[in-house]
Amino acid sequence: MTAPATATAALGPALDALLAALPAEAVTTDPDVLAAHSTDHAPFCPSGTPAALVRARTTDEVAATLRIAHEHRVPVVPQAARTGLSGGANAVDGCILLSVERMTRILDIDVVDQVARVEAGVVNADLSRAVAEHGLFYPPDPSSWESSTLGGNAATNAGGLCCVKYGVTGDFVRGLTVVLADGSVLHTGRSTAKGVAGYDLTHLFVGSEGTLGVITEVTVGLRPAAERPLTAVAFFPTTSAACAVVPAYMSSGPRPSLLEFMDRPSIDAVSAYRDLGFPDDAGAVLIAQSDRGEAAPADLRRFADIAETHGGTTVIAEDAAEAELLLAGRRLVGIATERLGAYLADDVCVPRGRLAEMIEGVAELSERHGLLVTCVAHAGDGNVHPNVIFDRDNADEVRRAHETFGAIMDLGLRLGGTITGEHGVGLLKRDWLAKELGPTGVRVHQGIKAALDPRGILNPGKVLAG
Amino acid sequence: MTAPATATAALGPALDALLAALPAEAVTTDPDVLAAHSTDHAPFCPSGTPAALVRARTTDEVAATLRIAHEHRVPVVPQAARTGLSGGANAVDGCILLSVERMTRILDIDVVDQVARVEAGVVNADLSRAVAEHGLFYPPDPSSWESSTLGGNAATNAGGLCCVKYGVTGDFVRGLTVVLADGSVLHTGRSTAKGVAGYDLTHLFVGSEGTLGVITEVTVGLRPAAERPLTAVAFFPTTSAACAVVPAYMSSGPRPSLLEFMDRPSIDAVSAYRDLGFPDDAGAVLIAQSDRGEAAPADLRRFADIAETHGGTTVIAEDAAEAELLLAGRRLVGIATERLGAYLADDVCVPRGRLAEMIEGVAELSERHGLLVTCVAHAGDGNVHPNVIFDRDNADEVRRAHETFGAIMDLGLRLGGTITGEHGVGLLKRDWLAKELGPTGVRVHQGIKAALDPRGILNPGKVLAG
Repeated sequence: MTAPATATAALGPALDALLAALPAEAVTTDPDVLAAHSTDHAPFCPSGTPAALVRARTTDEVAATLRIAHEHRVPVVPQAARTGLSGGANAVDGCILLSVERMTRILDIDVVDQVARVEAGVVNADLSRAVAEHGLFYPPDPSSWESSTLGGNAATNAGGLCCVKYGVTGDFVRGLTVVLADGSVLHTGRSTAKGVAGYDLTHLFVGSEGTLGVITEVTVGLRPAAERPLTAVAFFPTTSAACAVVPAYMSSGPRPSLLEFMDRPSIDAVSAYRDLGFPDDAGAVLIAQSDRGEAAPADLRRFADIAETHGGTTVIAEDAAEAELLLAGRRLVGIATERLGAYLADDVCVPRGRLAEMIEGVAELSERHGLLVTCVAHAGDGNVHPNVIFDRDNADEVRRAHETFGAIMDLGLRLGGTITGEHGVGLLKRDWLAKELGPTGVRVHQGIKAALDPRGILNPGKVLAG
Repeated sequence: MTAPATATAALGPALDALLAALPAEAVTTDPDVLAAHSTDHAPFCPSGTPAALVRARTTDEVAATLRIAHEHRVPVVPQAARTGLSGGANAVDGCILLSVERMTRILDIDVVDQVARVEAGVVNADLSRAVAEHGLFYPPDPSSWESSTLGGNAATNAGGLCCVKYGVTGDFVRGLTVVLADGSVLHTGRSTAKGVAGYDLTHLFVGSEGTLGVITEVTVGLRPAAERPLTAVAFFPTTSAACAVVPAYMSSGPRPSLLEFMDRPSIDAVSAYRDLGFPDDAGAVLIAQSDRGEAAPADLRRFADIAETHGGTTVIAEDAAEAELLLAGRRLVGIATERLGAYLADDVCVPRGRLAEMIEGVAELSERHGLLVTCVAHAGDGNVHPNVIFDRDNADEVRRAHETFGAIMDLGLRLGGTITGEHGVGLLKRDWLAKELGPTGVRVHQGIKAALDPRGILNPGKVLAG
């Protein structure tokens, strides 16, 4: 993906048109700024050299940009906070980076109908706090929630910790404003609680990673505020013991509002970063929460009983501060892993009943390829995040890391799972997507892509091969 | 939609191919059988004359049928229990009716992962009862649940009474097997709790009413069994008093598992059918349920307090039998309405905050057009079912009924709602769909239809103009 020497020059007439159509401050060609916007948060993922960055403030500015790009057949890479983990927002050579990060207005919070309408650049945490002031709750909470945006969350169908009870971003999106490849503006969905008028275009765009259109507004349903959760943690001698608890607990009664797993390498990584007092002999950890108010203590007692049956040792938090401490280890895995070296982040999701096979299989792959792999999981959903650690200056490790990264996806598919539970396909998993979809699935994807983006200008090479 | 004289004859070579490819008992051209299968449950909706009925038992048989239809360019109308209310399953002239009603196997109930996989002809109630034996719960409960099928429920994204808390069919569908227009077989989605690999084709087919493909298998997520609900009913002097309670109650705390509305004409219709002891002076009724176990009595007390603030008189059921009696009136509205004459069934959904305007607007339209309109609502969702009653032998009434039917949809759109909350577009609402979608929305629908069904053989004229 080296930039052709003519990339910027090739934008010539399109750039003139952009400068004529948009406010001056919206268009940048400064190479340093472009370089700083060329990648998302996916480690070790290739990116090209963009020709321009447009930071739109309105749907009209997004539409003007796409009309021009369409006319001049210039590729467009939609971006927001660039917190994605699959390279979906990485530049392609000669592209216009089209950012909605400045579209930050919360347009409406309707307390009666429990629905909010926001511009695509609104940060998840800003919306969550704004609706909380009205006694409402926007559940999807990707780890990036303090910086990622509703537009990006919708474009990638982001998950998070409390999906196990409440569902993912797409379960809350009711309608979108989307600018299509030719610059026309489409409103999908509705603000009502139900609706079946026409095809579900809303969910076609949710998770399409900027390949079908650019999301500029998002309407989400909200819930009544949940009660403050109670938290328990259980330490197990082995991964298999912890994993056996997951389906047993999940099928024993009401769903927890959080059920997370950490393996020993993750515990070690966190402990090296900050001593949180994890026991030295813990082979794996589960953390569970219940937010069912008066029923929560019984929920956690049930969790503890099942955990103890499988050899676990359980601590139930006495108060919110202790609960936060119990969760802190899980929250620190990301930053602690980054300290270990370069890494490739997998995101397979398997049936809950196959969780043990998946995580034990990852440990076997780690051993076979001679690379450290830390593994955490949104265990209640069967969504596993193995991070393959490697030295980016060691060509052999790089090769083995990529092999391991792919072998983990192959294992997930063999176990009846999917290559990505919440991070998306982007660039990193494109080749495995074709395996997962099969030829008919790929053909249908291509047909829909061609119908909506006949010139192939929208995020080319992402999700599907170009 | 008069049948051309050559309709059956035109099928000639295609019929020979069907007879060669399928078991003899799968193919019928008996005019009486065809006539009996030519319509769904939509009253007063036109239908054409089919050329053949194929009752498939396997995905392969559906695929063989579509391959032949595609090759010979014969229209295909997918059917299951034909309980739809919009004419979506009505025959078009010269079509093959392709029924999945014999595909009745429950293929898998996975208790650990709380997921079921069924053939498209499995009746909703059969699945619901089968999973209940495992302590699980499949919530979507359209009124037709004793006869409608999972395939039909998915194809129309059916709703029901408990959507207000648990969501509609689409919220539970995780994956589909779909036979495409050319007979190729597509597997969409996944059986895992989460997954974002590629476009959300699953929800593109859900609610597409047989215009994009024929659903032959459905994978649905399940929930832990809910606790037995407690029930309350409140009688109000006026519609506006009852409607004011709905947003107030819905925004006061956890969601009810049911919140239904009946207007005075509905009460009268039911009372004429069976005396359930409705008070003579009740202008409207709300029925609420909570299934939150120990928290349910407090939920209903909260409902009663809010209802009484708005002039309501509340009865909280002492036991399951009394609860069933309180709900019986609501359940009888359908059959009681059918006794009143021919009717056209609207299905608008508006924001909860506009419910009073919607239902009072329906009453005004009833008066203006001089026709009785009974009105019930899944009030918590803002989903209103006005039934426009008329004498089908009175041409002037027929004309006024159609005007009223359309005026109700126009009112729903003006109030920020949708023309259909759960019944679908079918034939009856096709012209209003174009109003709701707007020209860009229609164009995108047409593009997707053309990509998936380039010869336009799948349920032509439904949802979109042919």
